[in-house]
Amino acid sequence: MHDESLTSREGRLTRRRFLDLVGRLGGSAAVYRAALAIGLLPAVARGRLTELEPLGADDRRSVVILGAGIGGLTAAYELDRAGYDCIVLEASHRAGGRNLTLRAGDRIDELGNPQVCEFDDEPHLYMNAGPARIPANHHRLLHYARELGVQLEVFVNENRSAWVHDESAFGGRPVRNRRYVTDARGFMTEIMAKCVAASDLDKTMDGVDGERLLEFLRAYGDLDPDGAYRGSERAGHAAGGMVVPAIGHGVFDFAEILKAGFWRGPMHQGEQEDQAAPMMQPVGGMDMIVRGFMAKVGRRVVSNAQVRAVSLRENAVEIVYAHDGTLKRLAADYCLNSIPSHILAGLDHNFPPDYAAALDALPRGRLFKIGLQASRRFWEDEGIYAGISWTSQDITQIWYPGHGIFAKKGILLGAYTFGDDGGTKFARMSPAERIETAIRQGAKIHPSYPKYIENGVSVPWHRMNHMLGCAARWTDELRARYFRTLQEPAGRHYLIGDQVSYHPGWQEGAIASAHHALEHLNRRVRVETNPVLSRA
Amino acid sequence: MHDESLTSREGRLTRRRFLDLVGRLGGSAAVYRAALAIGLLPAVARGRLTELEPLGADDRRSVVILGAGIGGLTAAYELDRAGYDCIVLEASHRAGGRNLTLRAGDRIDELGNPQVCEFDDEPHLYMNAGPARIPANHHRLLHYARELGVQLEVFVNENRSAWVHDESAFGGRPVRNRRYVTDARGFMTEIMAKCVAASDLDKTMDGVDGERLLEFLRAYGDLDPDGAYRGSERAGHAAGGMVVPAIGHGVFDFAEILKAGFWRGPMHQGEQEDQAAPMMQPVGGMDMIVRGFMAKVGRRVVSNAQVRAVSLRENAVEIVYAHDGTLKRLAADYCLNSIPSHILAGLDHNFPPDYAAALDALPRGRLFKIGLQASRRFWEDEGIYAGISWTSQDITQIWYPGHGIFAKKGILLGAYTFGDDGGTKFARMSPAERIETAIRQGAKIHPSYPKYIENGVSVPWHRMNHMLGCAARWTDELRARYFRTLQEPAGRHYLIGDQVSYHPGWQEGAIASAHHALEHLNRRVRVETNPVLSRA
Repeated sequence: MHDESLTSREGRLTRRRFLDLVGRLGGSAAVYRAALAIGLLPAVARGRLTELEPLGADDRRSVVILGAGIGGLTAAYELDRAGYDCIVLEASHRAGGRNLTLRAGDRIDELGNPQVCEFDDEPHLYMNAGPARIPANHHRLLHYARELGVQLEVFVNENRSAWVHDESAFGGRPVRNRRYVTDARGFMTEIMAKCVAASDLDKTMDGVDGERLLEFLRAYGDLDPDGAYRGSERAGHAAGGMVVPAIGHGVFDFAEILKAGFWRGPMHQGEQEDQAAPMMQPVGGMDMIVRGFMAKVGRRVVSNAQVRAVSLRENAVEIVYAHDGTLKRLAADYCLNSIPSHILAGLDHNFPPDYAAALDALPRGRLFKIGLQASRRFWEDEGIYAGISWTSQDITQIWYPGHGIFAKKGILLGAYTFGDDGGTKFARMSPAERIETAIRQGAKIHPSYPKYIENGVSVPWHRMNHMLGCAARWTDELRARYFRTLQEPAGRHYLIGDQVSYHPGWQEGAIASAHHALEHLNRRVRVETNPVLSRA
Repeated sequence: MHDESLTSREGRLTRRRFLDLVGRLGGSAAVYRAALAIGLLPAVARGRLTELEPLGADDRRSVVILGAGIGGLTAAYELDRAGYDCIVLEASHRAGGRNLTLRAGDRIDELGNPQVCEFDDEPHLYMNAGPARIPANHHRLLHYARELGVQLEVFVNENRSAWVHDESAFGGRPVRNRRYVTDARGFMTEIMAKCVAASDLDKTMDGVDGERLLEFLRAYGDLDPDGAYRGSERAGHAAGGMVVPAIGHGVFDFAEILKAGFWRGPMHQGEQEDQAAPMMQPVGGMDMIVRGFMAKVGRRVVSNAQVRAVSLRENAVEIVYAHDGTLKRLAADYCLNSIPSHILAGLDHNFPPDYAAALDALPRGRLFKIGLQASRRFWEDEGIYAGISWTSQDITQIWYPGHGIFAKKGILLGAYTFGDDGGTKFARMSPAERIETAIRQGAKIHPSYPKYIENGVSVPWHRMNHMLGCAARWTDELRARYFRTLQEPAGRHYLIGDQVSYHPGWQEGAIASAHHALEHLNRRVRVETNPVLSRA
């Protein structure tokens, strides 16, 4: 089955995406389909919010927003501008949700393991414990960054000078990413060049000129004219190259390259649209986004306000929350709710059964991060000025800050695990044990670790107060069964946040979900407040 | 022929590098060879200057340095610190040489085409007309940047969101780098997977497990489980992905991909050690390096001092130069000379015949750059925040500034040609024609060009006063015949600059050549000033 109207001019629709689409077509997807057909793609792709209709002078509408994360703040900002009466109830002592930047003196509100960040008090010494990088295609987030005056700088994901470390390859020694990737490309294309030369190309590929393909392979892998890979200067030099001729590295063994797990995923990370260079980060920490929003709508945010009950009424949503030691009650025309689904499911509520079942069914990730303060930026001594090293150990990654180059100290991301196993394992340790583990594992890549790491903080998202989890983990099955239910409003109640998006774990998903709810709400309010439309 | 002592632990020495080395082995290369053998590689690879012995209280040594480019300034800085009496004669009105950052009001000293830079006067509105990016392996330059307090930020070379444009492919329309590269990898690995499956792998590659190789290919090209490439989300999305499912792009035709010249070079630029992410740039312009040096040794630099004659004497080097309308004469114990070889060859001199012949034989490049001020950063509207687009047109590249994101205006690099043809063609135009050409060609990639480009400057290095050329163009033959001659001193005269390095066109080459000369000079002076050594 292949719907021609869904293909782009150049040819076939990506099969994977196509199936994804066909499986779930309907509702607002039909809008996209129409947009594709009439050539409106670029605008649609940018995903801008349809401007909210400002309320008339005599119109009053109240909205209660639950949670001051990026989704809730987006909603507050837009509703405030359009003249809505809105309030944001935030359970914790701070706004931002998982947009959390840790600096000197900040407290980490982990259940059972309260920590205080001991980084030195300097502008470049911070850790983005939640989102830490902005892809260029996250147009909504970039739109707000621009509008809120948040200064951006380049963030580096991929660094060929950084290390690839796998305990089961290269004798357990780290190797430079550059040598690994160059040799992998070289051997891969050498084998292919041999196969192509030996086989009947016409049978394998229509319309491709064999000689040109061989040229392509030689360029791709930096092969010798005879199609063999005998090393490449792309792998870097062992010495020389300035006042004496360059001396190249030896080449690795391809079998050894294949032994390391790097090629199974990390090697291609930069190929992903969301992970491709250049990425960006706010100067001074990701929470500059939060500060930007708070400068506009901070007056509408009530901190330390823990919601206890959400009740759908015929013309309102009623909230009971604890604040200042007492229970308070609040009713609003609408509610936009970003409370994590699994926490929301446990509150008093009167959601319809299918809605409640959906909230209950959605699992959460256990992402875990460690930030380490180093008294010396020893990675710069190794020629690493930014980017990520990968290891088969539990810490998985080491991130080097691309800001503050040449400063005395720096904050490394000493661990970033996204699998449930890693997150669970680290979360069971005490904060001190986590740091010790990160140092012990990091030292296998950087022997300088024990000498220079001064202190650290750890953030296991599934143990963080008011969170108890990270990105929603939608499976195909869950999505088919529950996504539409949670995306549609339950009466006057809208669930928002990255949890109700096709991009959980990213700020862009949270903003998009808020936009989706706001556009729906906007249409309802227009009908309610316009006598002509109301009659229709 | 294969010298085992030159191989690294992992195996074969890169053939290319090995031949390069073997062909020219001797002299200081022997030092490297020994270093390799005794495991001193890392230190050697960093290429630090052997600290100059400070002159004793009673020792006086004078050095005249010709040219205040990066090589000359490096020499002045080191000699000054070691107590030498040195002076730098600079022909132009400014220091820096090809390290040239253009800002509002700067004059471009092109012979016959004087220009004034009309950029707005703002810190982020500048053009690096010479070197513009610093690779992480240029340890000498990075050492000085650190020591001189130059603040660095990340520079972006490669951007998958930028454009690939070839007039002979895709109907002449630009395509996103991301789609081109993803589809190229996909088709390439699909063909290979078919070939591997169809052939007898044991014959093509020793010790490689066939099934693992197929897995590798599927991961590399994002192939379907059956080994076919049917598009990949790595190519990005046409729409959706946030509140509705993502809709993928169609895939290109592999034959069309092969038609575009992008794969012959530009596609692999980021694979080069000197071009790999992350690169860096000084905040505010490359000439922050020059300013850093000048803050230390500016008092020793005489501008507008044009050398007319260089005479080797038994115990001195004598310089005649024009300054303030008169000819002046100066003698020093040593001379470090960075005057471009082809200009130096035309001055009065008494160099030995082989030295003079070498100076005369060395050709120069014709690199050409255009900077364009845009009244709106329209590339950000296209999701491009940094990096480079490539085109088959004469302008070759368009660079987008990664600094000043979200600012009102920005400076594009509107053309960067490195071949002699492009440089010659642009140099023959008037400055206004060059800008018109850059706008006309740029508009094929960005239709917004004519609307937003406000003004521009052009720098053809082979017409720039006191330069008349760019990087020295060593061929293998020239290098075999002349390099050693020019690298060794002629009496008390040392030729320096990137022209006497294996890395012409890069600041690192200039610094390395200065270090090489300084180390030689240091040894001589130690012998001269140490009675014990003198007797030996």
